[in-house]
Amino acid sequence: MKWWGWGDPSRNVELPQQVLDLLGSELGTGDRRARPVALEEVRVPDPRLSERQLGPLRDAVGPEWVDEDRLARITHAAGKGYPDLVRLRAGSAESAPDAIVYPGGEEEVRSVLDACASAGIAVVPFGGGTSVVGGVEPLRDSLGGVISLDLGRMTRVSDVDDRSLTALLGPGLRGPQVESELGRHGLTLGHFPQSFEYATVGGWVATRSAGQASTGYGNIEKLVAGLRVITPTGGIDLPPMPATAAGPGLRQLLVGSEGVLGVITQAALKLRRKPAERHYEAWMFHDFEEGVEAFRALEQGDIAPDVARLSDESETRLSLALAGEGSRARRLGRRYMELRGYREGCVAILGFEGEQAQVRRRRAPAERALKRGGGLSLGTSPGRAWERDRYAGPYLRDALLDHGVMPETLETAHQWSSLMSLYRAVREAIEAALATRGTPGLVMCHVSHLYPNGASLYFTFLARQQEGQELEQWHAVKAAATDAIVEAGGTITHHHAVGRDHAAWLPREVGAVGVDVIRSLKAKLDPAGILNPGKLVPGGNG
Amino acid sequence: MKWWGWGDPSRNVELPQQVLDLLGSELGTGDRRARPVALEEVRVPDPRLSERQLGPLRDAVGPEWVDEDRLARITHAAGKGYPDLVRLRAGSAESAPDAIVYPGGEEEVRSVLDACASAGIAVVPFGGGTSVVGGVEPLRDSLGGVISLDLGRMTRVSDVDDRSLTALLGPGLRGPQVESELGRHGLTLGHFPQSFEYATVGGWVATRSAGQASTGYGNIEKLVAGLRVITPTGGIDLPPMPATAAGPGLRQLLVGSEGVLGVITQAALKLRRKPAERHYEAWMFHDFEEGVEAFRALEQGDIAPDVARLSDESETRLSLALAGEGSRARRLGRRYMELRGYREGCVAILGFEGEQAQVRRRRAPAERALKRGGGLSLGTSPGRAWERDRYAGPYLRDALLDHGVMPETLETAHQWSSLMSLYRAVREAIEAALATRGTPGLVMCHVSHLYPNGASLYFTFLARQQEGQELEQWHAVKAAATDAIVEAGGTITHHHAVGRDHAAWLPREVGAVGVDVIRSLKAKLDPAGILNPGKLVPGGNG
Repeated sequence: MKWWGWGDPSRNVELPQQVLDLLGSELGTGDRRARPVALEEVRVPDPRLSERQLGPLRDAVGPEWVDEDRLARITHAAGKGYPDLVRLRAGSAESAPDAIVYPGGEEEVRSVLDACASAGIAVVPFGGGTSVVGGVEPLRDSLGGVISLDLGRMTRVSDVDDRSLTALLGPGLRGPQVESELGRHGLTLGHFPQSFEYATVGGWVATRSAGQASTGYGNIEKLVAGLRVITPTGGIDLPPMPATAAGPGLRQLLVGSEGVLGVITQAALKLRRKPAERHYEAWMFHDFEEGVEAFRALEQGDIAPDVARLSDESETRLSLALAGEGSRARRLGRRYMELRGYREGCVAILGFEGEQAQVRRRRAPAERALKRGGGLSLGTSPGRAWERDRYAGPYLRDALLDHGVMPETLETAHQWSSLMSLYRAVREAIEAALATRGTPGLVMCHVSHLYPNGASLYFTFLARQQEGQELEQWHAVKAAATDAIVEAGGTITHHHAVGRDHAAWLPREVGAVGVDVIRSLKAKLDPAGILNPGKLVPGGNG
Repeated sequence: MKWWGWGDPSRNVELPQQVLDLLGSELGTGDRRARPVALEEVRVPDPRLSERQLGPLRDAVGPEWVDEDRLARITHAAGKGYPDLVRLRAGSAESAPDAIVYPGGEEEVRSVLDACASAGIAVVPFGGGTSVVGGVEPLRDSLGGVISLDLGRMTRVSDVDDRSLTALLGPGLRGPQVESELGRHGLTLGHFPQSFEYATVGGWVATRSAGQASTGYGNIEKLVAGLRVITPTGGIDLPPMPATAAGPGLRQLLVGSEGVLGVITQAALKLRRKPAERHYEAWMFHDFEEGVEAFRALEQGDIAPDVARLSDESETRLSLALAGEGSRARRLGRRYMELRGYREGCVAILGFEGEQAQVRRRRAPAERALKRGGGLSLGTSPGRAWERDRYAGPYLRDALLDHGVMPETLETAHQWSSLMSLYRAVREAIEAALATRGTPGLVMCHVSHLYPNGASLYFTFLARQQEGQELEQWHAVKAAATDAIVEAGGTITHHHAVGRDHAAWLPREVGAVGVDVIRSLKAKLDPAGILNPGKLVPGGNG
């Protein structure tokens, strides 16, 4: 992974001229090229752990698994959020951990926590490092040191139970590893977030991750059947179970604990048989609200596809530009839509997966419902194109940054009856905040996770970077958007988690007593306050 | 409700002669008739609250809503578990609360908790009083008094949102009230536990209730979109939301909190449209395991009915006896099954509900799968008969007690791959424990809640009561069964909750650290330890 961005450094994504033109005319971006500094120019503080502090860590995991290497410390200095990338590209890795520790198993995790609790060293659990909310940034709070606890060695897959459709998965398994290991048993987890190539099982569970197919397969919280967590106070082992009424839901309490309560050392996850059929198709709606209503009908009628995405007008426009609308086929397609009255329409992607019969049972009634709801079928080829590019978003972000564009995303969810007012409020808040900074933006949105009672909204916005004030600019827009979300009654995050960036708004989400509950759990499980300080709850966890 | 048993006192259920014969031959019951004592013989301690203690309670809710009446205290002295009924029928209401307090709203709940925290009075939240695990028994722990906080006045239904399919429901609403209020909007909650006629929304949420149609509609934990809870430390308001990644799952933490962390004052529950079609039918399998495998295929193939029940051989035999197998139609039916090789078979009840199309989409493929799995269709009439009698169980229990028979139920759940071994282990443990007491039993079981990764097992057992040692006899069997459940890796309770009866086994379910987590939450939210002492966690909550 690039230290300053996303993915394989050798994979370069270029923006089509049409997109550059669009950004130029709408955002006022010029010819500026903004490249990251060279690696050797990155500022990294010297590691601060003494030999006396390093000794017990080396004893815990073996000396070869305690790493003070400069590049490793830079790659563990931040996640992949916009402010992280801004700082890294500018050469700031001031938040680098003092060391990276790679435990090989649960007992080693326990020993590392013991050593850190004794020595007063902060521990930041690190999976794929893909957090976009500052969840893995090493903050030392008032502690004397900070390590990244990289779980990349804990990739064991065991107890694959093809009758119960569950397996025990190590926290360090990345998306492709999960699918390849399970695929050998004819199974799938069906969890495909945009960060799939790098993100890990432990990270998914710790952040309540959702994937592109979660409308069908369910968010990770729905896929967790059991968990093993090591806390500084001791281990919690909740075996896989279909359901239980034995008191408060401790599994769900640990899902979303963001590394502040304990380290997830194993997840028992629910699986499905690998789909025999995968049918991806696209539809067009006259406007966003019409598409939202059609999606609601599918979901509440029990015929929703596994992947269900609906772009608003602006996102549709940019997607078409990205796909290179100049081609003859595209122009014909555009003409076809216009003739049918879908001039400034909204594109939806639907993906049905499963046994042939399962796909058929939903697809035929879904097609009727979509037509009734005002939809126009665009066939399977745009669906397949979406599928091919489904993990491309973060690569594009790097390309945009290279052109001096701020590309940021944020997401929320709400009940169906409040979804459109939430959409308008957030959109307007982002637009107004960007305009106030003198950098008018392009704000886009899609619906991507359907539930019987509501859906998620995922916003992407682009604006010209304010050179030298990139972080202030970002913060102003982020705060305005999150305030608007809270005001409109949406959740501050549907699947990116709280991390550093949303912590200030947590009291608005769960109330003062709710925050106190989390703090008291933290005090119980992590009395020395070493686990991921500065995340999840505002003003420290101590 | 009868003070000594279940339901309307005027509704008498008589056991058919065939059942009495079966009990006589298999359990050695004779002609003994064991009637409850007369109401005036019931022993109730004098109420112990001083005028100084009663004053703030009367101020909180109004004097007419603080009740020290003898009958009210008897009806709030216990739930409806077997040991509760044994004691009540024998005239013991020693655990009666000192008073019953009926709050009219959230602010009154808050004032009552404040008054009780100041005065050191235990508070037992009381919904329908149908707990079968001792969940509503007033225990005063070391406190000076105990009240039942009867939520029966808090029956408000508001914000019925027919686009998001949710509504806000007061905790005191009973099953029939819920369905009649929602029915006026064309909606249903779809929650039909056997205790439906009396149990309440607050009780369902506090105990992680499951209903007979929960395979389709989902357990209450799946239906909770939001919650309002008043704790002695303050209120927690979690509005209805389709999903959120904002930290640990506080909604699920409060679901199943059994009145020890706070008082549920409102639940935002997910609804469905009232089904246009309801199709109930019965099937026969050669044996239990064959039926279990057929059910697994339905569930994992996404074609499971909303109601799915499979009785084992013994339960099938007793059900047929209860239905009065003597009739000509029954004898012909039995002959029909035998001719097809289903001599000692297992009956399954399947109920499909929804729009006509939704029912059809599942029923046709389900029928094929059931036939492939060894099933024989018995048509719709036994399905309709089951539906007619779906709430009859607790009435039968009273009739059995009248004949000196101990009727008890317990339940668990496990992964599909362990379900049959759990079944055999628990069955054998109950049989052995009963045999050891010299009262050989009739042990029956059914599967009634299906999940992709497993299912529930619901055991019913009958045995001759050991006169004068009813509670010791019960406790010996209960302990043996629960030990066997834990040993086989099942959950100690799938939907009856922990209460008083399962508390000793909670550490086996969630571990020492898990219990500590609940205790520390309790200490945070209820520092005076007034809420439902002696429940959920072993050895008090203080």
